[in-house]
Amino acid sequence: MKDVQNSADERGIAIQQVGVKEVHLPFRIRTKRGDYQQVFANIRFTVSLPQEFKGTHMSRFLEILMPWSEKPMAEAEMEVMLQEALEHLNAESARLHMDFTYFIGKEAPVSKRYSVLDLDCFFEGSMRKGEPMEFTLGVEVPFTSLCPCSKEISSYGAHNQRSVCRVRLRYRQGYECIYIEDLAELVERQASCPLYPLLKREDERYVTEHAYEHPKFVEDILRDTVLALRHLEGLAWFSLECENFESIHHHNAYASHEESID
Amino acid sequence: MKDVQNSADERGIAIQQVGVKEVHLPFRIRTKRGDYQQVFANIRFTVSLPQEFKGTHMSRFLEILMPWSEKPMAEAEMEVMLQEALEHLNAESARLHMDFTYFIGKEAPVSKRYSVLDLDCFFEGSMRKGEPMEFTLGVEVPFTSLCPCSKEISSYGAHNQRSVCRVRLRYRQGYECIYIEDLAELVERQASCPLYPLLKREDERYVTEHAYEHPKFVEDILRDTVLALRHLEGLAWFSLECENFESIHHHNAYASHEESID
Amino acid sequence: MKDVQNSADERGIAIQQVGVKEVHLPFRIRTKRGDYQQVFANIRFTVSLPQEFKGTHMSRFLEILMPWSEKPMAEAEMEVMLQEALEHLNAESARLHMDFTYFIGKEAPVSKRYSVLDLDCFFEGSMRKGEPMEFTLGVEVPFTSLCPCSKEISSYGAHNQRSVCRVRLRYRQGYECIYIEDLAELVERQASCPLYPLLKREDERYVTEHAYEHPKFVEDILRDTVLALRHLEGLAWFSLECENFESIHHHNAYASHEESID
Amino acid sequence: MKDVQNSADERGIAIQQVGVKEVHLPFRIRTKRGDYQQVFANIRFTVSLPQEFKGTHMSRFLEILMPWSEKPMAEAEMEVMLQEALEHLNAESARLHMDFTYFIGKEAPVSKRYSVLDLDCFFEGSMRKGEPMEFTLGVEVPFTSLCPCSKEISSYGAHNQRSVCRVRLRYRQGYECIYIEDLAELVERQASCPLYPLLKREDERYVTEHAYEHPKFVEDILRDTVLALRHLEGLAWFSLECENFESIHHHNAYASHEESID
Repeated sequence: MKDVQNSADERGIAIQQVGVKEVHLPFRIRTKRGDYQQVFANIRFTVSLPQEFKGTHMSRFLEILMPWSEKPMAEAEMEVMLQEALEHLNAESARLHMDFTYFIGKEAPVSKRYSVLDLDCFFEGSMRKGEPMEFTLGVEVPFTSLCPCSKEISSYGAHNQRSVCRVRLRYRQGYECIYIEDLAELVERQASCPLYPLLKREDERYVTEHAYEHPKFVEDILRDTVLALRHLEGLAWFSLECENFESIHHHNAYASHEESID
Repeated sequence: MKDVQNSADERGIAIQQVGVKEVHLPFRIRTKRGDYQQVFANIRFTVSLPQEFKGTHMSRFLEILMPWSEKPMAEAEMEVMLQEALEHLNAESARLHMDFTYFIGKEAPVSKRYSVLDLDCFFEGSMRKGEPMEFTLGVEVPFTSLCPCSKEISSYGAHNQRSVCRVRLRYRQGYECIYIEDLAELVERQASCPLYPLLKREDERYVTEHAYEHPKFVEDILRDTVLALRHLEGLAWFSLECENFESIHHHNAYASHEESID
Repeated sequence: MKDVQNSADERGIAIQQVGVKEVHLPFRIRTKRGDYQQVFANIRFTVSLPQEFKGTHMSRFLEILMPWSEKPMAEAEMEVMLQEALEHLNAESARLHMDFTYFIGKEAPVSKRYSVLDLDCFFEGSMRKGEPMEFTLGVEVPFTSLCPCSKEISSYGAHNQRSVCRVRLRYRQGYECIYIEDLAELVERQASCPLYPLLKREDERYVTEHAYEHPKFVEDILRDTVLALRHLEGLAWFSLECENFESIHHHNAYASHEESID
Repeated sequence: MKDVQNSADERGIAIQQVGVKEVHLPFRIRTKRGDYQQVFANIRFTVSLPQEFKGTHMSRFLEILMPWSEKPMAEAEMEVMLQEALEHLNAESARLHMDFTYFIGKEAPVSKRYSVLDLDCFFEGSMRKGEPMEFTLGVEVPFTSLCPCSKEISSYGAHNQRSVCRVRLRYRQGYECIYIEDLAELVERQASCPLYPLLKREDERYVTEHAYEHPKFVEDILRDTVLALRHLEGLAWFSLECENFESIHHHNAYASHEESID
C-alpha cells in the first residue's frame, strides 16, 4: 500500500509540532517514598516534521506509548521515550506532555487522621537530537486564602475561599527535580491554611483559626512562593499563577509571575 | 434524490427523543423590566420518532430555530416553536432545552455601586400533540455560605466559600412563571450573603459581617429555599441542588431535594 | 465542643440527599479477567437526613471512603460501604456514585496490534435501610458512525465521525451485572465501526471500508442497541443516549431512549 | 477605613500580572458589515504591581469594565480601557483578554439556505505606559477534514471528521487587523470542506463529495494556512494549532506552528 505520509512535499514548510493529543493511558509514577503510584494520564506527544515530508506517522506515537504504560515512569524514562520518538519518527525534536492527577497523603492537624489529597500535575519533556532533555514539572496546589483587607476592616469574620497555585519549573542540567510532595508542601506553607480531605471538629477549629491568623492576599501568596522557590538549588526557571475563587464574588482574583534564574 | 430517512423501518422501536444537540445560537429573552436581553444559547431540540420511520430530518430543527433567533423569546414563543416541530417533523412529542447565561443588575449594599451578575439558566419546553406545553425554568444562583459549626467552635473567624443553588421549577397550567430576577432574589435571601461583582471597601466590610451574622449549613440553605418555594402560588414541582465549594476542602458539600405540590 | 450538626431542627423538612461531591480517590475495580484495574474516581456520596437534625456529619463520608480506596471494589464492596453509611450516619437511605475511566484491551482488526481504549464509566449504588442495594452501571462507548443518507445520495464518499453511546442499566435482584468489557463489545457491534487507538495502514483500510459497508444513522445505532440490550437476561431497566459529533456540522445528532423490562 | 492594599511591601518583588479572571459580561463587537454583534465575554484583566505596594485594587477593574459593557467594542475601545487601567491602577503595564463566541452567516453551498455558525474568539490587548497597544486576535474555525491516506488505500470511502484550526495573530503598528469573518473564510478555504449549520439533501451531497475531492492531512491544512497567512499585509506574528477529532480513534491528530514575520 502507498505510504502517502512519506511522499514529497513542496510547500517548503517545516512543521514545528505534529502528533497526537488527548491520548488517555495509565502510567506508574515514582513517588518520594520510592514506590509507584498508578496515574491516569492525558497525553500530547509531538515531533517536528521536515519540510520534505507530507506527513508524520501517527500510529508510531501509540506504538511508543503503549509498552511504557506498564512500566515505572520518571524523568529518565521520559528521556528514553523521546529518544525513541526522535529515531522512529526520524525527527529533529520531540515533545511529550502528560497531565495526571497525583495523590499525596495528608494528616489532619490535630486529630492526625489520614486522608489523601488530589493534585493536578504534569510532566513535560522536550528534546532536540543530540541534546539532553529539558524537563518541566507542573503542579497545582489547592489551599485556603483569607483576605487581610476583609479582616482589617470588619468587626468580626473575614472572607476566605478555596484557592489554587499553579507552579511550573525547570532545573539546570545535572540537578534533581523536586518531588511533587515537597513542592506541594512548599506552596502550602505560603497559604493562609493547607487543605485536608478529612477534618474532625478539633481540626476544623484549628484550620479556621489558623487561616484567620494568617491572612494573605493573592499577591502575598504569589510573592512568598517566589521567595521560597528562589531558594531551590539548581532551579533554572519557574512560573506561578495564583487564583482565589472569591467567596464574595462570582469572579476570581488572579496573579501570575515568571522568572529565569542565572 | 432518495429520502433515506423516510424509508420504512421494521425493528418496531419508537424512539423517545431524536434531534440535535450543542446548537449554539443567539436569542433575545424578555426581562422583568419589559425589555429584552440578548443571550447566547446552547440548544437541544428533539422529537419522538414513530417506529415506522428510519430517521428524522435533522435539518428541519435548524430551519425552525434560525428565524426565531432574531425574535423575542419567552414561554409563548417556545410553545410556537414546539408546535412547528410537531407539525414539520410529524411527531407526537417535542422537547426544546436552551441553556444560557442571563445577567441581572446588582447594587452594592452600602456604596450602591451598580454592576451585573451572570446566572446560568435554562428554559425547557416539552409538548405532546394536542396538549399544552410543560415549561421548566432552571436557574443557578451563586452566593456566599458561612459554616455555623466553624463559627461556633472557633475563637475567631469562620470558614466561608462560594456556593451555588440550582433551582428547577414548573407551574401548573394557567399560572405565570416567576421571573429569573425574582427567583434569584428569593434564593439569595436564604444565603449567608449574596454576591456582588463590584464591592468598595465599605461594601466588603458589610458582606463580611453580614455573612458572619448569618451562618448557614448547606442543609440550612436548602431547607430555607424549600420553605420559600412552597409559598409560590401555582407551583407544581421543584427540585433543588445546593453545593458549597468548601474553602477548607478540595471537595464540595452537597444537598438535593425534589417536591411535587398538590 | 458543641455538635452543631446534631442540634434540633424545627423546619420539618427531611432532606432527600446530603453529603459530599467531587471527592477524588483512587480505587481498584475488578476486571472481567479476574484481576484488578486501578482507577481514578470522582465520587458523590450522600444520605437522607431526617427532619429532626440540623445537619449531617460530612467527615464521616471521608472516613468511610478512605480505607476502601486501597481494597478491590465491585458490587459487593459498594453494598458494604452503603451499609456503613446507613449506620455511621444514622440514615434511612444512602447513595454512592463513582465516575471513573476504565481501560479495555483492543486488538487492531488486521495487524492484531494491541492497544488500550479508555471508557468513561460509573458505578452507582443506592440503598434503603433493610433493603438490598440497587446497582446502576454506566458506560460510554465511543465508535465511528457513517451516514447512510450521505452515502446514498453522493457519487463517492460518505460523511462519518466519532460518536458515543452512553448506556446505563440495572439488573433485577439475583442477577449478575454484565462486565464493562462485554457491554462495550455489545455496543460496538451496533456501530459503523469500533475505535482502535493503534491502527497500522492495513487496519486503517479495514476500518474505512468496514464503516462504509455499515452505514448507520444515530437512530439505527440506538435501535440496534435497544434490540441487543433486550436480550440480556435479568435486565430490569436501561437508558441509552447516542450522539454523533457530526463531521459536517458544528452541532451533534442525538437520540435517547429508556425502557423498563418486566 | 484602612487601605491595606496601599500599605508598603518589603519583599522586593514586582508582580508581573495581578487582577481579575472569569469576569462574565456582555459586550458589543463591531462586525465586518459595520453594525454590532452582542457577545458574552469571559474576561481576564490584569496590571503589573510595583514592588512597593502590598496589593492592587481589585474593584477598580470592575469599575472600568462595567460602563464599557454597554458600548461598541473594538481595538480603539480596548486601547482606552487599557489606558484607564494604567491610570486608575497606577501601573506600568496592563493586559485585557476577552474570550467570546462570535456568529458568522453561512449560505448552504447549493440550496443557499442561510444559517449562522458560532466561532470561539478572543481579543487581547496589552500595553506598557507611553507605548501603543499590542493587539492579538484569536479565532477557532471548525471544518471537515478527510484523510488522504485512508482515501488512497481504501477501495471506497475515506474517514473524515470535525476539525478545528486555532489562529492567533498580531499586526504591525499602523496596519488594520483582519475581520473575524475574513479570517474564518481564509481558514475554511484550506479545509477539506467548511461547516454549515443548515444543509438540505442537495447540500449534504455537495459537502460529502467536496470533502472526498479535497483530502487533507492535519499537516496539509496547517501548511496551507501558513501559506495563506503569509500573504496578509502587515502581519507581524501568528500561531496556528490544527486538531482533528479523528473518527477512527478516541484521540486527536494535532499540529502547531508559530512564525514572526519581518
